[in-house]
Order: sequence, then C-alpha cells, then structure tokens
Amino acid sequence: MKTRIAIIGLGKIAIDQHVPSITGNENFELAAIVSGRLATVNGLPSFRTQEELYAAMPDVTAVALCTPPAGRFETTRAALLAGRDVLIEKPPAATLGEIAELTTIAEDQEKVFFTTWHSRFNPAVTEAKRQLTGKRLARLRVDWREDVRRWHPGQAWIWQPGGFGVFDPGINALSIVTEIAPEPLFVSHARLEVPSNRQTPIGAEMTFATPDPVAGADLTAIFDWRQEGPQSWNITAETTEGTVLELTDGGAKLAVDGKPALAEESQEYQRIYAMFADLLASRTSHVDVRPLRLVADAYLVGDRVAVEAFED
Amino acid sequence: MKTRIAIIGLGKIAIDQHVPSITGNENFELAAIVSGRLATVNGLPSFRTQEELYAAMPDVTAVALCTPPAGRFETTRAALLAGRDVLIEKPPAATLGEIAELTTIAEDQEKVFFTTWHSRFNPAVTEAKRQLTGKRLARLRVDWREDVRRWHPGQAWIWQPGGFGVFDPGINALSIVTEIAPEPLFVSHARLEVPSNRQTPIGAEMTFATPDPVAGADLTAIFDWRQEGPQSWNITAETTEGTVLELTDGGAKLAVDGKPALAEESQEYQRIYAMFADLLASRTSHVDVRPLRLVADAYLVGDRVAVEAFED
Repeated sequence: MKTRIAIIGLGKIAIDQHVPSITGNENFELAAIVSGRLATVNGLPSFRTQEELYAAMPDVTAVALCTPPAGRFETTRAALLAGRDVLIEKPPAATLGEIAELTTIAEDQEKVFFTTWHSRFNPAVTEAKRQLTGKRLARLRVDWREDVRRWHPGQAWIWQPGGFGVFDPGINALSIVTEIAPEPLFVSHARLEVPSNRQTPIGAEMTFATPDPVAGADLTAIFDWRQEGPQSWNITAETTEGTVLELTDGGAKLAVDGKPALAEESQEYQRIYAMFADLLASRTSHVDVRPLRLVADAYLVGDRVAVEAFED
Repeated sequence: MKTRIAIIGLGKIAIDQHVPSITGNENFELAAIVSGRLATVNGLPSFRTQEELYAAMPDVTAVALCTPPAGRFETTRAALLAGRDVLIEKPPAATLGEIAELTTIAEDQEKVFFTTWHSRFNPAVTEAKRQLTGKRLARLRVDWREDVRRWHPGQAWIWQPGGFGVFDPGINALSIVTEIAPEPLFVSHARLEVPSNRQTPIGAEMTFATPDPVAGADLTAIFDWRQEGPQSWNITAETTEGTVLELTDGGAKLAVDGKPALAEESQEYQRIYAMFADLLASRTSHVDVRPLRLVADAYLVGDRVAVEAFED
C-alpha cells in the first residue's frame, strides 16, 4: 500500500526535487500540500497549516518538511506528536539540543524520523564510500569555495546568529565527508573568519583528527564564500595505499586516480525517497547529527578572526 | 570484592576530593597513582604513564581521570582500549564529537564510562530535582557571577579557543539546571561577551526554550566573570504553582519559599563514588552530554559582542 504523504513548505527545493521524486516513486502517493500561501501543485488540496491537514486528511501518515530552517523544531515536533512520520531537509534543526529532543519524541511516538543530508545521496558519494571502506586516510581535503553574492544575494538571515554563514553550504561537504570517511572525524582546530559587520563566518578552515591517527595524516577543509571566478565544491581523499579519490561538483562526479569512476546524473532525491520507503517499511528512524556537530564543535574550539566588512 | 582503582592526574581536585572519597568507600581500593611527576599519596605505587600502570598492575580494573581538560580524549580512549572502566571529571572532553566517540568505544569494549558533573551531586540539587519532578517551570534564573582574577589568575588557556571562558565555571550551573529541570531545555538565544583581546567569553546570557513552553515562561542564565564584590552561584526556579526554589552556594544549599530545605555538608564526591560503584555493579555507563551541548549550541546560535580588553 502506498504511503500517503504531504509536503510542508512549497518552496523551490520542494517543487524542483521533492514533488517529482515523490510522484516518481511507486511507494508514495503525494496527497496534499501545506503552504502558508495556499500554493499547490498537480491540483492537490492545500492547507494553510499542518493542523488543518491532519484534521481533514487523517490518512496522510507522512510529511516531508521543506520549510526554511527557522521554526523547523516546532513544525517537526507538531508533526511527530500528530502521529506522522517525518522526513526533513538539512539542517534538521537550529541546535543539537533540538535534534536530540526530536529524536526522543520520535522514539516515544514510535514514528519514523529521517534527517536527510541530500548531498550524500549522490551515487558518486556512495561509490566513494564503498572504495574507502576498510582503508585509512592519509589526506583529506575539502575545497568548498563559492560566491555568496551569487548564491545568497541579500539573504540577511545567513549572517545572523544561527544563520551558519559559510557553513550553510559547507555543511553539505561535512555531510559527505562524514559519510565517506572510513573513521570518525573530529574537529581538532578551526579558524573562523567573520566579517567585522556580521555574526557568521564568510570563510573557515577546519582540521580534523581521528581517534587513532595515521602518522602524518593531513585532514583539512576550506570553506570560502569569497570565490568570484570558477566555483568549486571538491573533496579529495587519499588512502595510505596511495589511491586518490576526487569528488567534484558537490559530490556529483568521482574520479579515482585521475580516471572517471562514475558520472551518473544526480539522483539525490530519488534515492532519498527510496531510503525513506525502506525506513517506513522497517519502522526505523535515521538521525545523523554529525554534520551539525562538526559545525558546533568548530564554533566551540575555533579561533575567530575578524575580517573585512561584507556588504551585499 | 573491592574494585581496585587508580587515579590518573594527582592535582588539587584529586588530592582534596577523589582520594578521600575513594578511600572512604568500602567498594573501592585505591591501588595506584599515575602522575607525570611520579607524585603519590598514602605510599601508593606511582607510574609515569597509564601504560606502565596497566603492565605492572593488571588487576587495577578502573581509573578516575583527573588530568586537565587538554588531552583527555586520548587518555580516556587509551584507558578504555586497555580494558579499564573510566570515571572522568567534567568536562568529559573538548568537543561533542570526542564524547560521542568515547561512548562508542566504551560500548564496543563493554566498559563502564561515567562522565561526572560534580555540582549535580550536592544533596540540595537532588532535593531540588525531587521537588520539581512533575512540575512546570514558570521562571528559571541562573546567576553565576565570579571574579576571574580571583579564581583563575594568569590561566591563559581559559581564554584560548576551546578554553570555554566563563563557561568553565558556568558549565557547573548548566549541569545543575539540566539535572533539576523537569523538562528539556534548549538554547533559544545567547549573547556572548568576548574581550577584544581574547577568544572566549567573559560574560554570557542564555535564554532557554522548552519543547512545549508555558505561556510567559522566563528561563534565563547570566554568567559573569567580572564580579568583584560578593560572588554568587545561585539558581532560582519558580513553578507554575508558585513554589520558589533557591539553590545557592553553587548548589550546596536549598531554600523553598524562603525556608531552608536542606543544608547538609557537601558530599558531592562521596556520592559520585557511590554512583560509580552502582554503575560498576550493574555494568552500566552514564554519559550525559547536555551541559556541554548547551554551551556548543550557545556558541552556534549566539550573538557575539566585543567588550573591553581583559588583562590579568
């Protein structure tokens, strides 16, 4: 039987990715939309609030939460307490405390709670993970460099406390490295570059440690929002055996020792919904806090440096 | 049979508290000391490293880790991998990622891992918790005000990234409020006051949210390291029924509606070792990350304000 699911928050990511991925998956039936503007697609019923949806359509047992980050905790909590299974876009909440509480509520309610980190669902990331399994890392280098003026023009919230700054895109890289790394990664050092007129970093460097470090291992990440020319979202991993994996285009492409290893069209969201169907079938939650925990730990132990004021 | 235990790190807290609490508890036998300076007490054998201890005394099955915060992760990990049960002073590690990894290692090794937060073990805190159970909070106010020059003279590390600043004492208050609060607390807002020449806060304000807030609830904490006169380590909690609990002297004393409710001599460390004996008997770990998670979340969502330079 198909799971009747509603999308909460019909923004760009919902329309571009969630709608086609749900309607293209035989395990789901997209049944309704919740939108403050009463927007809809495919002629589906639309409700201003999730409470109205639940009252009108008790057979909608799952929701995909695609609202902006602010207020996600309350929305997710209400959905779980209303007895719905929840899939949520990254980042799952504003703080680690909120995610812990949502996890507890999902357990108490016996509901499925799935915190997706979409970048991980690229087939090239899965292949990189497979190739690194059982290996040790000699080198890891994240280069996540983009132009904030191009991707986040005039978005004031990203610069406010809790807005994550350059970690808003950077957390995608962290969701990939925590997925592919064959050993746990912690933050040993971090440097956060914060514009003198802003609260969140425009650039950051992170050095990772592992529990049992390989001698001479060099594991670092660079995040920069001041990249004006070509943009780069690349991760290079080198094993102690000398194999070099290069994930490029945000995890969409993989080369191994310089040869293309996989370059499928991105199927991130199709794979997200395939996994959600599996989780629903087995009544299992999947909550991964690691990408956000790395950011929190970087804030906790990081050196903060004031840099040039940033104006949009 | 008594658990043979060693103390790793023979500093002031170990000598003042751990040694008498272990020797006063019939479930333990203090068997050895690990000290880089080969310091000892009671004529006990002393070893420069824990590896030397384990090689010489395989029947020492537990360790109490009392070293300074830096390097605790490696020390705890080595103790667990050497098959020892571990009690560790607060804070248990530098980052949340490290604590998560230590928890996993303890599970894999089937060892008991006990992260103590000593302030919680005041009898007055236990009584406050009992009185708040099942109640709702209308008001919570933490006032943790002390003079950093008096308590941490010349300690450069507290001002460096990862040194926690005013949260070094403040985390004791957070360990109490997470213990006594009848509902989960998250950081909704924070304000961190950082001296212009330092990296960690000299003052902080934190506003807490709860999952299902009481209308008008006011839950805040003030941490200040610039308090020159009388020092205060006080927590006031008011229930929706109007009962007012006042924990003073860092959790040592409790008054309820203005009347002293309990003023036993502090027995924090005796109670810590009583709990460790119970955990060892039931082969159960007790890991609580909440106090450190509140600090990390405050860094993550907090507003940072530069304040006057601080000189020792």
